[in-house]
Amino acid sequence: MKAAVVGGGVIGGGWAARFLLNGWDVHVCDPDPEAKRKVTEVVANARRSLPGLLDEAMPDEGKLTISNEISAAALDADWIQESVPERLALKRAVYGEVQKICRPGTTIASSTSGFTPSSLQEGAAQPGDIVVAHPFNPVYLLPLVELVGSDRNSETAMDKAQRTLEGIGMKPLRIGKEIDAHIADRLLEAVWREALWLVKDGIATTSEIDEAIRLGFGLRWAQMGLFETYRIAGGEQGMEHFIAQFGPALKFPWTRLTDVPDLDSDLVKKISDQSDAQSGSLTIRELERIRDNNIVAILRGLKTQNYGAGRHLRSLDEKSAIKLQYPLNAPLMTADRVIPPDWTDYNGHVNEVYYLEIFSKATDRFLEFAKCGPDYASEGYGFFTVDTRLRYLSEAVEGQRVRAFTQCLMFKGKKLHLHHTLKSDGGRDLATGEHFLLHADLTQRKTVEPNAKRVKPLHEIANAHSGLEKPESISFG
Amino acid sequence: MKAAVVGGGVIGGGWAARFLLNGWDVHVCDPDPEAKRKVTEVVANARRSLPGLLDEAMPDEGKLTISNEISAAALDADWIQESVPERLALKRAVYGEVQKICRPGTTIASSTSGFTPSSLQEGAAQPGDIVVAHPFNPVYLLPLVELVGSDRNSETAMDKAQRTLEGIGMKPLRIGKEIDAHIADRLLEAVWREALWLVKDGIATTSEIDEAIRLGFGLRWAQMGLFETYRIAGGEQGMEHFIAQFGPALKFPWTRLTDVPDLDSDLVKKISDQSDAQSGSLTIRELERIRDNNIVAILRGLKTQNYGAGRHLRSLDEKSAIKLQYPLNAPLMTADRVIPPDWTDYNGHVNEVYYLEIFSKATDRFLEFAKCGPDYASEGYGFFTVDTRLRYLSEAVEGQRVRAFTQCLMFKGKKLHLHHTLKSDGGRDLATGEHFLLHADLTQRKTVEPNAKRVKPLHEIANAHSGLEKPESISFG
Repeated sequence: MKAAVVGGGVIGGGWAARFLLNGWDVHVCDPDPEAKRKVTEVVANARRSLPGLLDEAMPDEGKLTISNEISAAALDADWIQESVPERLALKRAVYGEVQKICRPGTTIASSTSGFTPSSLQEGAAQPGDIVVAHPFNPVYLLPLVELVGSDRNSETAMDKAQRTLEGIGMKPLRIGKEIDAHIADRLLEAVWREALWLVKDGIATTSEIDEAIRLGFGLRWAQMGLFETYRIAGGEQGMEHFIAQFGPALKFPWTRLTDVPDLDSDLVKKISDQSDAQSGSLTIRELERIRDNNIVAILRGLKTQNYGAGRHLRSLDEKSAIKLQYPLNAPLMTADRVIPPDWTDYNGHVNEVYYLEIFSKATDRFLEFAKCGPDYASEGYGFFTVDTRLRYLSEAVEGQRVRAFTQCLMFKGKKLHLHHTLKSDGGRDLATGEHFLLHADLTQRKTVEPNAKRVKPLHEIANAHSGLEKPESISFG
Repeated sequence: MKAAVVGGGVIGGGWAARFLLNGWDVHVCDPDPEAKRKVTEVVANARRSLPGLLDEAMPDEGKLTISNEISAAALDADWIQESVPERLALKRAVYGEVQKICRPGTTIASSTSGFTPSSLQEGAAQPGDIVVAHPFNPVYLLPLVELVGSDRNSETAMDKAQRTLEGIGMKPLRIGKEIDAHIADRLLEAVWREALWLVKDGIATTSEIDEAIRLGFGLRWAQMGLFETYRIAGGEQGMEHFIAQFGPALKFPWTRLTDVPDLDSDLVKKISDQSDAQSGSLTIRELERIRDNNIVAILRGLKTQNYGAGRHLRSLDEKSAIKLQYPLNAPLMTADRVIPPDWTDYNGHVNEVYYLEIFSKATDRFLEFAKCGPDYASEGYGFFTVDTRLRYLSEAVEGQRVRAFTQCLMFKGKKLHLHHTLKSDGGRDLATGEHFLLHADLTQRKTVEPNAKRVKPLHEIANAHSGLEKPESISFG
């Protein structure tokens, strides 16, 4: 598959990275002589953060081309993403050029923050192929994309667009009614406008406003959003009570939103001076890496809770999860993933804890394959690890692709003995994990003999693996 | 220290929990006959989430009293927190009653979202003792508190209030100018108002708006806030460029904020129906626990990055960190903490990975005590773990207090051999961790002999510990 990305700024570069890392060939076109450097830098940022966000390996990267030739980009493209500046005439001119070249039926998606699909479609040769797909920076990490059509777009065309966006790991929010600025930017604009007043009136600095957000409601919004948060605030009496309690405040003259602050040079200078004082010691690239590491850490946290964006990521993992397969003539591959940027410790390599995290998930996957995973837990049984040996053989680092291979050394009575090997992409041994587990009754919280018939699949694997060569170093026996 | 909490709703209960878990005695007063149950439930929620947010144990809990007697609450109080409904006359009446009883100079802090300190102080006997300390729900988890005074409050009084709030783990944001609704609620109100329009106009449901937030900009705001995020969006040309690019949109008629939506029964019903469809299958208590687990997971993620609210939490940990001490006549206590709620796996106990997380941090702390921690890394040297044995002896569960004790079994040449024991509050062995480490040159990434003089403190510990009784089970050596 090939994506054409028209406009190679922060947003276009983010789209390019997302398509590329999901296996698409990408042709970016931009007249800026610096476009190549800029897009390459965004793609580099994406490479260090996106793959490690997932617990599964991504497809092989596609081929990246960056040029100033819009026709070459559009030729044979399966998706065209327009991210040029917010000028309607410019956007329409791009569609005109592109639709001379591309196949009819090829989706042209605009990253516009403000324009409606109807206004973008006006005068186009194939208006029904043009939609809005409005992403959020960093495009390669944030799942949200607002997908908006007009009545000129068929349901089929919108469904197809949705599937493509889902295919590159995004979570499209289909918006039924066209309005200027869609949904999220209307909320953002409301906050931005109010924040400008707070700075202009000298109530708070940019840094204080950021603190007020990230130490307070930002933490609520990252996982539940607005309404679910307020539902809780309403307490046992629910949403109606909340509105009754807080509704009247809307009538107070709290906000300055009936006015628009004048963005004169004084205000611009005030904001940019305060922002320099707050973050000026870091370059934009450094800030981007900090932001990406933070977002990865937050998202990985939400994944453990299977909630919000974390739930979305889990569903991506499930989609691309390795399928363990018969025949059992070799250790099973139980992990194939990339080391995320938030696993590095002060010694400059992956912290010892995360090796066990990989092995622990490998054990989970092995048990699931043997029909002794979460379903077995809901029947009231499971395996508890009682002894573990970890040997660290080579350093692993951020961005590295690693694989785990699991061999069942023994399963007898209630005893299960597993051995994992973690390997680098080049096949070098990075670590081994040897685990001794006991079968347990989860209700009584004690070890018990399993029902032989129920654990037959596990016996089959153990039998098959008993014929394999034993690992070099075994501690438990 | 004793805190009086006047008003035992969601906010008052949250304050009570925060003071209590930070070692204060708390007297909550509220005329609601249900107050006791409600406050107790909020405190129970706090007990399961706050202690595990920290990597260090909190002080012993204070004593909780819940009654309807405001005078008994205010008597001998060191801090009075008022969280009664948002009616000015009611709040002033509370201050009148309280100031008849409490010592002059005792801070009376209002949780008000909207009123200014000046308006609260009017008519009070000791106006200079009344301030605004506006927290965010859940009060026991979110660090932000807006601290606002008027010109009747002395600098000394404000500084004292700030120190008290810091002492219960909060991050006070001192707001220099009084305005209605302070800072954060002005931003929140702007979004709330706009969101109401989106629902009323049928553009989006409550669930879609929540998705738009938590899959998109909510993830940015949880860590950087508004301005730092936009600084990055401006790219290499910085904040001025961003404003130039996006400023003009303020003139577009995107938002509906010049109008106020009428909260008639139709709109209230629409919102509460949509909210029921979105979250109605869960009780408020269940939603609260989900929210708290999510926030703990996000905050623990941000702690790994030492950023935003995560940086604040790290500073709290540092403040209450165990001080390892001579004489070395016993294993060193290297961890004293509570198991957080996000560590539980599908078997209903602490996942095996987190035992290693505790031991890994115990090793870090031991090395720091021996002057071989992060400072040594910045000199270019460190210790790499090469072999680990973990024995799981008893199950550990959410909310449990645990301690780790570390013994140095050997330090010779480049070899370091450590043994950790994890114990329950009752002294039961939960797990052991045995770690074999090698001294390494971080520049050359290889093991080397250390400079004997530099690692003298480590030799001293090893010598002292060599006289201690050896642990029962040793694998390496």
